[in-house]
Amino acid sequence: MRITVCLSDNNRPEPWVEGLRRELPQAEIQIWTPGAALADHAVVWAPPQQFLDEQQQLRGLFNIGAGVDALLNLRLPPHTRIVRLDDAGMSVQMVEYVCHALIRHFREFDVYEADAREGVWSYRRPRARRDFPVGVMGLGVLGERVGHAIAQFEFPVQGWSRSPRQIDGIRCFDGDQGLDGFLAASRVLVCLLPLTAQTRGILNRETLSRLHGGRPGGYLINVARGAHLMEQDLIPLLDAGQLAGAALDVFASEPLAPEHPFWRHPKITVTPHASARTQREESVAQIAAKIRALEAGADFDTLPGVVDVQRGY
Amino acid sequence: MRITVCLSDNNRPEPWVEGLRRELPQAEIQIWTPGAALADHAVVWAPPQQFLDEQQQLRGLFNIGAGVDALLNLRLPPHTRIVRLDDAGMSVQMVEYVCHALIRHFREFDVYEADAREGVWSYRRPRARRDFPVGVMGLGVLGERVGHAIAQFEFPVQGWSRSPRQIDGIRCFDGDQGLDGFLAASRVLVCLLPLTAQTRGILNRETLSRLHGGRPGGYLINVARGAHLMEQDLIPLLDAGQLAGAALDVFASEPLAPEHPFWRHPKITVTPHASARTQREESVAQIAAKIRALEAGADFDTLPGVVDVQRGY
Repeated sequence: MRITVCLSDNNRPEPWVEGLRRELPQAEIQIWTPGAALADHAVVWAPPQQFLDEQQQLRGLFNIGAGVDALLNLRLPPHTRIVRLDDAGMSVQMVEYVCHALIRHFREFDVYEADAREGVWSYRRPRARRDFPVGVMGLGVLGERVGHAIAQFEFPVQGWSRSPRQIDGIRCFDGDQGLDGFLAASRVLVCLLPLTAQTRGILNRETLSRLHGGRPGGYLINVARGAHLMEQDLIPLLDAGQLAGAALDVFASEPLAPEHPFWRHPKITVTPHASARTQREESVAQIAAKIRALEAGADFDTLPGVVDVQRGY
Repeated sequence: MRITVCLSDNNRPEPWVEGLRRELPQAEIQIWTPGAALADHAVVWAPPQQFLDEQQQLRGLFNIGAGVDALLNLRLPPHTRIVRLDDAGMSVQMVEYVCHALIRHFREFDVYEADAREGVWSYRRPRARRDFPVGVMGLGVLGERVGHAIAQFEFPVQGWSRSPRQIDGIRCFDGDQGLDGFLAASRVLVCLLPLTAQTRGILNRETLSRLHGGRPGGYLINVARGAHLMEQDLIPLLDAGQLAGAALDVFASEPLAPEHPFWRHPKITVTPHASARTQREESVAQIAAKIRALEAGADFDTLPGVVDVQRGY
C-alpha cells in the first residue's frame, strides 16, 4: 500500500509522514511531488488540481481538517472518496472558543477589563441568561458538543440543521422552513455550518436582522468559514446597534488583510482562524485507523467522516 | 412571625422586603432601624454589631451571600444560627467566571486580542491541556461544580478540601498533609475556600511557589476572599515569572484603591467582586423556603447552608 502526503498553506508534511510511518509500518509513505508513483490513499490539505489529475488511483483522500469545501471545488479521480477528520481533538477547542466568546460578551468581561485599565471599580447590572438564548447553526459533531456545553451554562439553546434532529436539551429547527423560527428564538448566533452552495452567505443583513425577533443586541460568533458571512453587511448592523458585537475566527480572505476594517472595529473580536487547530497526533492516529479498516476490507460508508459529495459535507 | 432586613454596602433593602412579603404573606417584614421590635429571623448583609446586640431573640440569621466570614467577626445573640445562601444562582456565575479566566489564559486569547489591535495575524503554538492541570481549593457546592465544569474542557482536575472527599473526575486531596501533593499537581490554582483562621493568607509566596512542582508558569484565579491572598507576595512572583498571571475578583480591601498596583499590572486581571452576584429572586425564594421549613418545626441542622461557627463555614 502506498500513501502520499500533500499539504499546502504552511503545513509541514514531514511530521505527518513520520507519524503515519509509525502507525502504518507496512505502508510506503511519501511526500507528493509531481510525477510521483500512484498512491492508494492521500493525506491532504488544499492540494493543487495537478495532484488530483495525476493521482488517478486514489481511494481515500484524507483531509486534515473538518471542513472540506476546498476539496469540493476540485475535480476528483473517478473512485476517490473524501474523508474528513472526525473530532480528533478539535471539538473541545471549538467548545472553548465559543464558550469564551459567549461568556465574555454575556458577562461583559471586556467592559470590566476596559474599566480596570482606567482603575475604575464599577458593577455592571447582571443580565438574565433567559434573555440570551443561543442558536447553534450546524449540528454535526462540533455543533452538538458546543450546544451541550452552552446548555451547561444554563443558557437556552436551540440548534438548526439541514435535516431534522432530536437532541436532549437543544430545541431543534431544520431546513429552510425552520430558519425563521430559529433566528427569531436566538439572540447569540454561533455558526458551525459546513460551507456549501446552500450555506454560503447565510449570515447576511437579512438573516442577522431577524435575530431575537428583530430586537437589537444580537451577537455573532463565526467559527465555520468566512464565506458564510456577507462581510460588507456586518459593520452597518453593528454601527446601527442591531448587533451588539461579533467574534470572528474565519474570513472570506485569510490571512485577513492588514487594512481590513474588522481588525480595529470596537465591537469585533478577530482571531486568526485559531478556534480549533488540527491536533497532529490525534489526527494521524485517526487517519491511520481508518486506512487500516479499509485495507482490512471495510466499506467507506462504514467510516465516520466520509463526505457525501452531493450534500457537500 | 417577624422578619427584619438589615443590608449594608449599597444593597437596597426595599426589593428584598417586597420579595419576602410576596413569599411569606403571613409574616411581618420590616427594614431594621435602631430600636425596632425584636424579630424571629433576619435577612442580612454585613450588619452592624448594634443590630445583633439589639436583636437578642433572633433564631435565623440569613446571609444574602455564600461567604459568612464578616458575620463570624461579630458577637451573636445566644440562640442565633447563621444560614448562608446555598447556590441560589451563584454557582453558574462562578463557573462562568473561572472557565472564562482559565480558557482565556490557556488559549492565550488575551495575546490574540493584543495582536488584533495591531492588525497582526499570527498563530500561537497550541499548548497541551495535560500541561495545565487545574487545582480547585474548596470543594463546597461552588467548588465541586467548578471542578466538574473544568473537567468538561478536558483539563486534569484536582481538588483540595479540609476533610476527605470523593468526587468522580476530580482527584481529591485533603488537610494539611494533602496540601503539598495538591499544589505540586496543580498549575492553575482556583481559590473557592471559605475564609477562616486556617485559610487566611493561604495563597502566599511559599504555597504559590510550589505550584506545578515549583516549575514557573503557574496561574492564580481567586474568587473567594481577598484575605486568602498575601497581596504583597503576588507581584514579585509574577515579575520573576514564577507565576504567569492572575485573575482576581476579591481583594483585602474593597473597592480596590485607585492607586493599588494590581489595577495596571500587565499580568493581573482585576474584576470588582463581580464573579457571582446574589440573584435576588432566587435568594428570596430560598430564604423564604427555609423560614417556612423552620416555622413548620424543622431543625436548623436539616437545612442546607447552616453554618458551623466553630468550623467557620
